[in-house]
Amino acid sequence: MSVTYPRGFRASGMSSGIKENGRPDLALVVSDRPARAAALSTANRFKAASLLVSLEHLRRGEKRAVLINSGNANCLNGRAGLEMTRRLVAELAAALQVPVEEVLFASTGKIGLLLPESKITGALPSLLAGLGDHGHAAAEAIMTTDRVAKEYRFETGLAGRTGPVRLGGMAKGVGMIRPELATMIAVITTDAAIEASALRQALKESVQESFNMLTVDEDQSTNDFVLVLANGAAGNPRIKAGTPAYAVFRDALRDCCVDLTRQLAADGEGAEKLIVVKVGGAWSLRDARRIARRIAGSSLVKSMISGSNPNWGRVLAAAGSCAARIRPEKVRLDLAGVPVFAAGEKIAGDPAELRNRLEKKEIMIELDLGLGAFSATAYGCDLTEEYVRINQEYS
Amino acid sequence: MSVTYPRGFRASGMSSGIKENGRPDLALVVSDRPARAAALSTANRFKAASLLVSLEHLRRGEKRAVLINSGNANCLNGRAGLEMTRRLVAELAAALQVPVEEVLFASTGKIGLLLPESKITGALPSLLAGLGDHGHAAAEAIMTTDRVAKEYRFETGLAGRTGPVRLGGMAKGVGMIRPELATMIAVITTDAAIEASALRQALKESVQESFNMLTVDEDQSTNDFVLVLANGAAGNPRIKAGTPAYAVFRDALRDCCVDLTRQLAADGEGAEKLIVVKVGGAWSLRDARRIARRIAGSSLVKSMISGSNPNWGRVLAAAGSCAARIRPEKVRLDLAGVPVFAAGEKIAGDPAELRNRLEKKEIMIELDLGLGAFSATAYGCDLTEEYVRINQEYS
Repeated sequence: MSVTYPRGFRASGMSSGIKENGRPDLALVVSDRPARAAALSTANRFKAASLLVSLEHLRRGEKRAVLINSGNANCLNGRAGLEMTRRLVAELAAALQVPVEEVLFASTGKIGLLLPESKITGALPSLLAGLGDHGHAAAEAIMTTDRVAKEYRFETGLAGRTGPVRLGGMAKGVGMIRPELATMIAVITTDAAIEASALRQALKESVQESFNMLTVDEDQSTNDFVLVLANGAAGNPRIKAGTPAYAVFRDALRDCCVDLTRQLAADGEGAEKLIVVKVGGAWSLRDARRIARRIAGSSLVKSMISGSNPNWGRVLAAAGSCAARIRPEKVRLDLAGVPVFAAGEKIAGDPAELRNRLEKKEIMIELDLGLGAFSATAYGCDLTEEYVRINQEYS
Repeated sequence: MSVTYPRGFRASGMSSGIKENGRPDLALVVSDRPARAAALSTANRFKAASLLVSLEHLRRGEKRAVLINSGNANCLNGRAGLEMTRRLVAELAAALQVPVEEVLFASTGKIGLLLPESKITGALPSLLAGLGDHGHAAAEAIMTTDRVAKEYRFETGLAGRTGPVRLGGMAKGVGMIRPELATMIAVITTDAAIEASALRQALKESVQESFNMLTVDEDQSTNDFVLVLANGAAGNPRIKAGTPAYAVFRDALRDCCVDLTRQLAADGEGAEKLIVVKVGGAWSLRDARRIARRIAGSSLVKSMISGSNPNWGRVLAAAGSCAARIRPEKVRLDLAGVPVFAAGEKIAGDPAELRNRLEKKEIMIELDLGLGAFSATAYGCDLTEEYVRINQEYS
């Protein structure tokens, strides 16, 4: 299901041989009819060839398909890499009998290796033949160091000619994650009918509160890509920005993005715990977001959570290192539901109770700045020795 | 020697019982005559009580002594912590028979614990009685998770009445290190005679190229403090800014700061390798510094170096994630002296040779942006499982 849950979407996933260990590495999502598309991508100055071509194609028009490979980032391979990417996209477009601009491409994996072109072209017929209700197979084929596939599906109350509007999503990406415009790879499908500008706005608003608030290691990928395809198969009245229907759709899209974000954080490289950081009472939204992300991204906070260690001073030190308004005497901090700091000093609580709560799989860090009305939530994970092992060896 | 190498400085270090394991935890550096002082400190919004009091005292006048404790950050303990800090500094000033404003205080260790006041006041007589040529004992007493003491001494050609001008320095700080105005704790002594404004300027310039280019984990401490004391005991003509003598002194001070920075990076928490990142050909100095620090601070680059893994794409991904001018086709990257990327693509070299070189204890990463004349060097260390273990348990 997931990306094949909305009507009019088919998907497939398979092993094409890009990954030497034979695991699935090639996914295709196709809409049976032209779909409105909106996307956000990495701000990195070095962008993958797949992304460069997709960004060209995204400039205008509707889309029919997105091809995604894992095991190779298709990045920093010069002109040869870019030309090969164009050939692959053209070949897929010809097979689908659609204009080349209607095909998008995303890649994830190691940087600086040419894609094995013949393996991919050799696999395309099977990939196409396998198209069906295989959202799960697609979600598995985009995994790199992910331990589990990330999937989502949801039905909104927006009734259409053929029933409620549906959303489906899949995502990958457990390391090299830092929010800036977008992170990792996510493909979201919906059968909603919606205007292109409204879709872009809904995506932007949703990403601000979800993928942009996710951090695993403060490293930013060259391949980050979040795509939403809306094919209108639900037959609902076309959604326009600023209407009640838009609000319902935007909330559904945001919930999808937040859910995938939580799944990504919980499966961070080597991670054993999900960390949710809520910052409230901030003087500005920017302050709230900045502080929440800094806390979630702090190596020392992450190590402390990994060790179930109530060293809360690290949380405040991380918060205080941001260019944001803070008055220490107004700050209140709760760790795993236990108040630990207020009015400028430590709250003497029950250390055993706090340690117990820090053993849980999901740790909430709540910071109230006591200065204003803005709040934000960031998502991260603990830092374990396994993260280091994975990234010592990854190549 | 180190801080007691310049004439007219005495120091001592001892165990006062702040650290439960009985290791040295209290250091004192005293100048026999009033010394000009310049300092830079953390930009963190939460500052240690020791630092708050020192910053007040630093506003004007000469200084005679700096007390430093390890094992307790003396931070975020509210009014009680601040009042105790004032009492401790006053007691030391009385014992030294100097005005309270001539005494500075720095602390390092865990946040949120009140200092054991009676242990420190009980130790002061022995600390004072022990004053002598004990720079090494002082350097040992300021260590926390440091494995080795960081010390430096140097003699410049600036002749004075009693011989050349001398500089000595000590530093601590192996985790929670991110450059912003200053990092960690460093005390530098010199017997140079120098105007206060020239001393401030020389420190600022030196820190820009040294401690501000150091990163261990991108976390910022609440206690960072870099102090230089110049007591004029060398009897040289007083150094003024903008003179040849100033240039000689500034270079000597910068070399001291760079040397201590390298020692700090090499002894980063859990670190096995020193990473030196040189960025050249940048369009601006800001770009060069930003990119060098980002590369040195990247968890993925640090893990890769730890694993002696030639995954150079991570270095470029880190560089590209900065808000800085980069044109991928102009970039050249050498890793451990081996060219790996130029003209937009990988350079096919000898992978075995590269892996061999990555096994070394000091890894140089050289990035030429090919855009301009600015360059910068950053200092960091690899990320190992030991870093995670240390910081899971630290409390």
